[in-house]
Amino acid sequence: MTIIDGKKVSTYLKEKISLEVKQLKLEGKKTPHLAAILVGNDGASETYVAAKVKACAQVGFDSTLIRLDEQVSEQELLDKIQELNNNSQIDGFIVQLPLPKHISENKVIEHILPEKDVDGFHPVNVGRMTLNHPAYLPATPFGIIKLLESYDISTEGKNCVVIGRSHIVGSPVSILLGRNSYPGNCTVTLCHSKTADLKSHTLNADIIISAIGKPEFLKADMVKPGAVIIDVGITRVKSSETKSGYKLLGDVKFDEVAPKCSYITPVPGGVGPMTIASLLQNTLLASKETIYKKKTQAYCA
Amino acid sequence: MTIIDGKKVSTYLKEKISLEVKQLKLEGKKTPHLAAILVGNDGASETYVAAKVKACAQVGFDSTLIRLDEQVSEQELLDKIQELNNNSQIDGFIVQLPLPKHISENKVIEHILPEKDVDGFHPVNVGRMTLNHPAYLPATPFGIIKLLESYDISTEGKNCVVIGRSHIVGSPVSILLGRNSYPGNCTVTLCHSKTADLKSHTLNADIIISAIGKPEFLKADMVKPGAVIIDVGITRVKSSETKSGYKLLGDVKFDEVAPKCSYITPVPGGVGPMTIASLLQNTLLASKETIYKKKTQAYCA
Repeated sequence: MTIIDGKKVSTYLKEKISLEVKQLKLEGKKTPHLAAILVGNDGASETYVAAKVKACAQVGFDSTLIRLDEQVSEQELLDKIQELNNNSQIDGFIVQLPLPKHISENKVIEHILPEKDVDGFHPVNVGRMTLNHPAYLPATPFGIIKLLESYDISTEGKNCVVIGRSHIVGSPVSILLGRNSYPGNCTVTLCHSKTADLKSHTLNADIIISAIGKPEFLKADMVKPGAVIIDVGITRVKSSETKSGYKLLGDVKFDEVAPKCSYITPVPGGVGPMTIASLLQNTLLASKETIYKKKTQAYCA
Repeated sequence: MTIIDGKKVSTYLKEKISLEVKQLKLEGKKTPHLAAILVGNDGASETYVAAKVKACAQVGFDSTLIRLDEQVSEQELLDKIQELNNNSQIDGFIVQLPLPKHISENKVIEHILPEKDVDGFHPVNVGRMTLNHPAYLPATPFGIIKLLESYDISTEGKNCVVIGRSHIVGSPVSILLGRNSYPGNCTVTLCHSKTADLKSHTLNADIIISAIGKPEFLKADMVKPGAVIIDVGITRVKSSETKSGYKLLGDVKFDEVAPKCSYITPVPGGVGPMTIASLLQNTLLASKETIYKKKTQAYCA
């Protein structure tokens, strides 16, 4: 059994990006520049955005953090997005989710110019991904793909069960792994809350990707010996074992599942660290105009 | 066993659309107007486009057929598309596929304004469908959904196996049936040419949707008793039994599968007739601005 080391892979990816940035600078080209909009003061969001800004510095990107008040109107936020759309210095930007309830997330996401949508949430990027056209892939599915690739895990013709159909993880990763590519060419079954007899599906799976956020949900008796386990869940639960009084648990009951499988991602240190590397990668692609050749709206009509 | 009568359902849908058009006219509103661009003189394409134009007349739509020479340049076609994008009289339009090899289909599709893309092929519509936002659904998947709905076939929690991952049928119908809606909430497995042991999947399926274009591929021994069978394949094969010297065959060996299942679509007369009804429905939605509220490019940023 091999533990998939997401920290190591993400560090390697970041070093690669860092080298590319050095090369761009040597050639006198523009330094990639990521902006992030943070609305309000949610603790988790603060932590995530701070980590993204820090990662930019690590790889030599410029970054800009834009803070807006919790009470900002939807129109003010849309105006700010329009400003970033029009700012040629910004290669890509994100709006940290979730947003306050008075603001429509869909409206906000659709307002971001697809070529600057480095989170890969805009319908144009989702549609291009579904159609297997060049696109910014959403961070977590991209991270999962990269982990499978880094460990040279065979996927073609494998039965893959994805648990959870969120737009951020389950649905896109099911699409990516079913495509004609590597990693890909899996026979993917997308399971969710309405699935009957989940165990019959997971027991038939060569690869299981769990993304439901239920701590230790996936037990050993649900897993076929030799399966590859990708654990996307990360839930903070109270614990008397740690100083902080809490610990992070994945969707997988690690101690009993790990001995049965061929590869497994730990929580933390598995999929989690990959997401920021994915965001940096998309920003680099935006800066280099790899996906969208011209910074215009030509694809709209 | 019930044979799903696609002709009957599509006739009913067309009558419903026809009534809505009469009502629009009574209210003094604009008559829905579909345009079709046909490049070259491919026999099958001629037939399909002629059927679409005829169906427009049946339901009271205006229609415009634009014929371009086989040798038309890509730029000339894009210019024509731009003209239709800008023509407020045209609610929706399609470019009949396939196109001659010197023209990029992707480029052409991305050039159509999403709000006029009544084929549902533009990445914006595909992305919105994937994200469960309002969108024009592609014709065949839409037709399948409507058939399941018309026969009140239960889908929630059912195991659904889709065979074939084309962008036109297999991939979108797998997405639609996995969504949280009715029809939907299936546990969908998307099978394709790289799938190992297809039979193990189909034997476990409550609903099978076959869209691979291999005549009589799906045999009785691959089907669970009581399953629902949707046959999207339609292949013209030589036959000494018919006057014309050919017959149309589906992906399913109908005579041996039909007695085993609960519902089955025949070929012809099953999914086929639904596709034009879907196109008309999308055009009506475009005319009524149901999906895209304003005929602008605002969603592009």
